Amino acid sequence: MIGRLNHVAIAVPDLTAAAEQYRTALGAKVGAPQDEPDHGVTVIFIELPNTKIELLYPLGENSPINGFLEKNPAGGIHHICYEVDDILAARDQLLKTGARVLGTGEPKIGAHGKPVLFLHPKDFNGCLVELEQV
Amino acid sequence: MIGRLNHVAIAVPDLTAAAEQYRTALGAKVGAPQDEPDHGVTVIFIELPNTKIELLYPLGENSPINGFLEKNPAGGIHHICYEVDDILAARDQLLKTGARVLGTGEPKIGAHGKPVLFLHPKDFNGCLVELEQV
Repeated sequence: MIGRLNHVAIAVPDLTAAAEQYRTALGAKVGAPQDEPDHGVTVIFIELPNTKIELLYPLGENSPINGFLEKNPAGGIHHICYEVDDILAARDQLLKTGARVLGTGEPKIGAHGKPVLFLHPKDFNGCLVELEQV
Repeated sequence: MIGRLNHVAIAVPDLTAAAEQYRTALGAKVGAPQDEPDHGVTVIFIELPNTKIELLYPLGENSPINGFLEKNPAGGIHHICYEVDDILAARDQLLKTGARVLGTGEPKIGAHGKPVLFLHPKDFNGCLVELEQV
């Protein structure tokens, strides 16, 4: 069911410093910051040959990243995103196995303009898992 | 400098349950458990089309995963691994930027039989970063 690892999202306390570090210390291809007001984040994509890293920084007071950075002031890996072909079929299969889908259970349009769902971390080894239909 | 994302390593409190969940609920291609006594872990590889997930479970009393699971009883993402062509050149470049390398600073032979280094999470947004020479 799951396909490619679409991205690993890392919440960072200083977006400029994190981007510069990936550019300079790790020599990676680092994009420009993009505000995503619908998702309460500013994102910088790091393009690796086989997948992406998303640096996440809070945008606005109600950012979903605020709580994470309060608990993890140095930052940390926020979620991983797996691609699926059919997000509703994936959701229904997951619900059958007892996994919980966050929110209403209906896909939302994610930061890449595609339908996404998040799965409850307690059901997935403490990892917040995003599914994205590609 | 960094190349592909080689793997994302997830420490899990129940290896059999986690493998079964990736196989059944997420429909992934899940390998057999492999004991890595030199690294104090039992590993299951999940093969995605573009990268791997490594499920890590402690092997032995001195496993480096024990402390992580004490702090994160549900499990969690333990580290991410980037590939590099020349691990000594990568290390020297990192040291120049002020990043810290864990341990002696000399590469060890990792779970895949290749030279690896780990970077200090405090220097990398709270993420434990492994570099693997490929």
